[in-house]
Amino acid sequence: MFIRNAWYASAWGHELTDNGMLPRKILGTSLLFFRKSDGEVKVLRDRCSHRFAPLSLGRREGDCVRCMYHGLVFDGDGKCVEEPGRKGVSPNTDVPSYPAVERHKLVWVWMGDADKADPDLIPDCHQHESPEWASIPRTAHFKANYLLVLDNLLDFSHLSYVHENSLGGSKTIAETRPKVEQTNKGVKLTRWYLGEPGFAPYLKGYERFTGPVDRWNIYDLSTRSNHFSMSSGSAPANTGAPEGKLAPETMVFHSNQLITPEDENNTHYFWTYAHNFALENSELTQALAERISAGFQEDRDMIEAQQLVVNESGDDKMAFILADNGLTLGRRLIEAELAAEAAEQGR
Amino acid sequence: MFIRNAWYASAWGHELTDNGMLPRKILGTSLLFFRKSDGEVKVLRDRCSHRFAPLSLGRREGDCVRCMYHGLVFDGDGKCVEEPGRKGVSPNTDVPSYPAVERHKLVWVWMGDADKADPDLIPDCHQHESPEWASIPRTAHFKANYLLVLDNLLDFSHLSYVHENSLGGSKTIAETRPKVEQTNKGVKLTRWYLGEPGFAPYLKGYERFTGPVDRWNIYDLSTRSNHFSMSSGSAPANTGAPEGKLAPETMVFHSNQLITPEDENNTHYFWTYAHNFALENSELTQALAERISAGFQEDRDMIEAQQLVVNESGDDKMAFILADNGLTLGRRLIEAELAAEAAEQGR
Amino acid sequence: MFIRNAWYASAWGHELTDNGMLPRKILGTSLLFFRKSDGEVKVLRDRCSHRFAPLSLGRREGDCVRCMYHGLVFDGDGKCVEEPGRKGVSPNTDVPSYPAVERHKLVWVWMGDADKADPDLIPDCHQHESPEWASIPRTAHFKANYLLVLDNLLDFSHLSYVHENSLGGSKTIAETRPKVEQTNKGVKLTRWYLGEPGFAPYLKGYERFTGPVDRWNIYDLSTRSNHFSMSSGSAPANTGAPEGKLAPETMVFHSNQLITPEDENNTHYFWTYAHNFALENSELTQALAERISAGFQEDRDMIEAQQLVVNESGDDKMAFILADNGLTLGRRLIEAELAAEAAEQGR
Repeated sequence: MFIRNAWYASAWGHELTDNGMLPRKILGTSLLFFRKSDGEVKVLRDRCSHRFAPLSLGRREGDCVRCMYHGLVFDGDGKCVEEPGRKGVSPNTDVPSYPAVERHKLVWVWMGDADKADPDLIPDCHQHESPEWASIPRTAHFKANYLLVLDNLLDFSHLSYVHENSLGGSKTIAETRPKVEQTNKGVKLTRWYLGEPGFAPYLKGYERFTGPVDRWNIYDLSTRSNHFSMSSGSAPANTGAPEGKLAPETMVFHSNQLITPEDENNTHYFWTYAHNFALENSELTQALAERISAGFQEDRDMIEAQQLVVNESGDDKMAFILADNGLTLGRRLIEAELAAEAAEQGR
Repeated sequence: MFIRNAWYASAWGHELTDNGMLPRKILGTSLLFFRKSDGEVKVLRDRCSHRFAPLSLGRREGDCVRCMYHGLVFDGDGKCVEEPGRKGVSPNTDVPSYPAVERHKLVWVWMGDADKADPDLIPDCHQHESPEWASIPRTAHFKANYLLVLDNLLDFSHLSYVHENSLGGSKTIAETRPKVEQTNKGVKLTRWYLGEPGFAPYLKGYERFTGPVDRWNIYDLSTRSNHFSMSSGSAPANTGAPEGKLAPETMVFHSNQLITPEDENNTHYFWTYAHNFALENSELTQALAERISAGFQEDRDMIEAQQLVVNESGDDKMAFILADNGLTLGRRLIEAELAAEAAEQGR
Repeated sequence: MFIRNAWYASAWGHELTDNGMLPRKILGTSLLFFRKSDGEVKVLRDRCSHRFAPLSLGRREGDCVRCMYHGLVFDGDGKCVEEPGRKGVSPNTDVPSYPAVERHKLVWVWMGDADKADPDLIPDCHQHESPEWASIPRTAHFKANYLLVLDNLLDFSHLSYVHENSLGGSKTIAETRPKVEQTNKGVKLTRWYLGEPGFAPYLKGYERFTGPVDRWNIYDLSTRSNHFSMSSGSAPANTGAPEGKLAPETMVFHSNQLITPEDENNTHYFWTYAHNFALENSELTQALAERISAGFQEDRDMIEAQQLVVNESGDDKMAFILADNGLTLGRRLIEAELAAEAAEQGR
């Protein structure tokens, strides 16, 4: 079950080359992404209406796609515009198309009711294009249901264990209870760890100051679009960071993470980890991408192993612990949205 | 669902060596093929009656097969003729055998009602042994249901696209509507493309004349046995080929293709592509086998990709186009035969 | 379906290193084995109570295991003893533990009603630690249901065929009808082959005498625990071995084999093949382990192939032959125990 009336990040814009085609499965449906000559992104079902050959085995012909099985041609809206050997085309030969918008370097697709596909609902990832931030677009893939990935993000106590030697580096993270708030889009978590003896391991070699550190992670998880938007940072302790006063050597980061279901058992993961200091230091930008990526592989190993255990657990119930307030709220909001969509569809 | 009362090509005769055994699954059932000392081909279920060990892990002993698990011996008719440690054999120890005939270099098996296994129903592939034709026996395997393979053969418009640079080489093929006729065995398609600027790409280097070409494909597809029997050729344009007058430099081919279901998801493909000119030119014979084989790999790539899309398409309906009259007729005939067999079995 | 109220061999003691953890699936359930600092073996479900992460991805901390997802700590009895960020622990956070005993170099686990886990029921494998016997612990794995493995052991006629050139070496084995007796634990089979021309092939190079041989296999198969306990040997013919009079050059062996279901489709196989002569000859001990292992690979090849055929055979019935009295009795006893356990559980 997926929320359908939402924009899902589905590709980086740079994956769509001028005459190329990108096949990718989103919410269990095989899609074809391509870019017209005017730059516009189009998304069709990756399935010829005729004999269900994948259009991604076809050929770009201008702004159209020809199925290379029997030669039908479709335009960017999925309209069948040529059927070899006849004038006009047979009825019912169009293929489904999906609203798509390219924004903030990402391609967003809407797989629900097209009438509701309001671009204003696209999550804000302006940092990807802002001159005030530097980051590198990255993609991961998890062999797990997206809800297990969201659970992971909704409880940062795992940083102390899964990421002991990478993103975490402190037992304080797990021992600190975050503030959990419901927002109009989902869940907001705020976590401060004051006076930590040092930085997280992933910043090694790039520290901007010495001495104790005030660290924070403040993030929104939108339960439509599964957009995780996090501000995090490290400031010299006792310089006022919790009150919003940032000393010049403070290191501030912003991470956008887009968790898009491929199908019930697989998840796409588009992410950036931007810094707003030392913008000219491309080595730092690159190092952050590599180190955060290594951290996400730690998540992936754990979550994929967890998925295998879940698969053999039938209806067994998980136990709730105190740290679960974030993920419990997130799961509850998602279930409510799924129920609302189902009711609307008369399902 | 498979038509059972039909002869299915299941092996090339040369695959059955003197003391060997060939295991192969046909219509979802694992079979064992072997050749007796008098040359006769025998086909048994590849399953010992006792504990279901595969007989193909057994040992030929003369014209019999010994199961190498507990030692039971079966003759070529599946009769259990030895049970170690007793005189005679226990009841119900025979294994099923299937009528089999070797003809035209192929081994044909009948998996329906044995009383109906009339060898006169075996498809005509005499070209395999005729001194007037030269060809090389070949086998392919598709990870797809056999009906998708038949569909492919029943609409040659795909030659223009799947085989653009191999077997096709002309948009005319897709733009030409073939004559489609129902025969007493299945479907007959006739397609002429007159005055084409050149030969199909797969004939490159072996052309026997220059100038424009009249090309044709005329074939029967038998919906019992799934035998595709095609005459095709290239004649100098305007020399009377469509009226049956073949100029001496005309290049005539005959292809037999036998589409045998392995199971619901896999298909065996036995084929030849014979020429009746330049018979002494074994390089040509070999080149045709290699080039047609490359063309069939193009089909395989498309059909296997199509099968994956079909698998995720549930009950979604394919669209019909004008070119579908051949495959629609073929599918209809097969469904009628399946229904007739089911009715007869009281299924 | 598995008999649950039984001790199952699940690991060799040497697999449990001081600070290590061993994940292994038994009867379809993923378990975690580890050894406390006092040497005691503990077995937990390999699944954190919280979010079902595998504990085997966790970390030993003294005699406890920390889940490395969110940091919960469990003691050797599965009790949750630490939940990061709170005093005490949340309710229902313990994980299941299973009675376990290390005896005769093997780790035995009980997955049924813990109240019935009487260590006196552990099968006798004292030869593994006796100064009178020499053997090497070995493990195999079969991709097959355990019942097919038991069938194999309950009919030694397969030695003549599966093991023609290894453990068997004589048609007499298949032609000799064993004595089959029901015992209080299962089935006992006794098989003598008198005056055989030579030894079994696996003893080549280690024969202790020349001339004809009286061979025997006498074994109990316990249908709880699936313990196969076999005495076998080769004595000079006509020296009284069948009456229990063993000439000094007689070669006597004892094999323990423990057949433990991993799940419905896979089986663990723990075994030894001990000799009680030439104890100082470690080359012999090693050779026996290697040669018997090669023989068991022959079984594995046959049984895994048989399983594939069984999988495609639906409800088809196997035929009974005279040699089946042992396996028929064994199967009947197992079915009765399964039915008794089901009745007790009100299933």
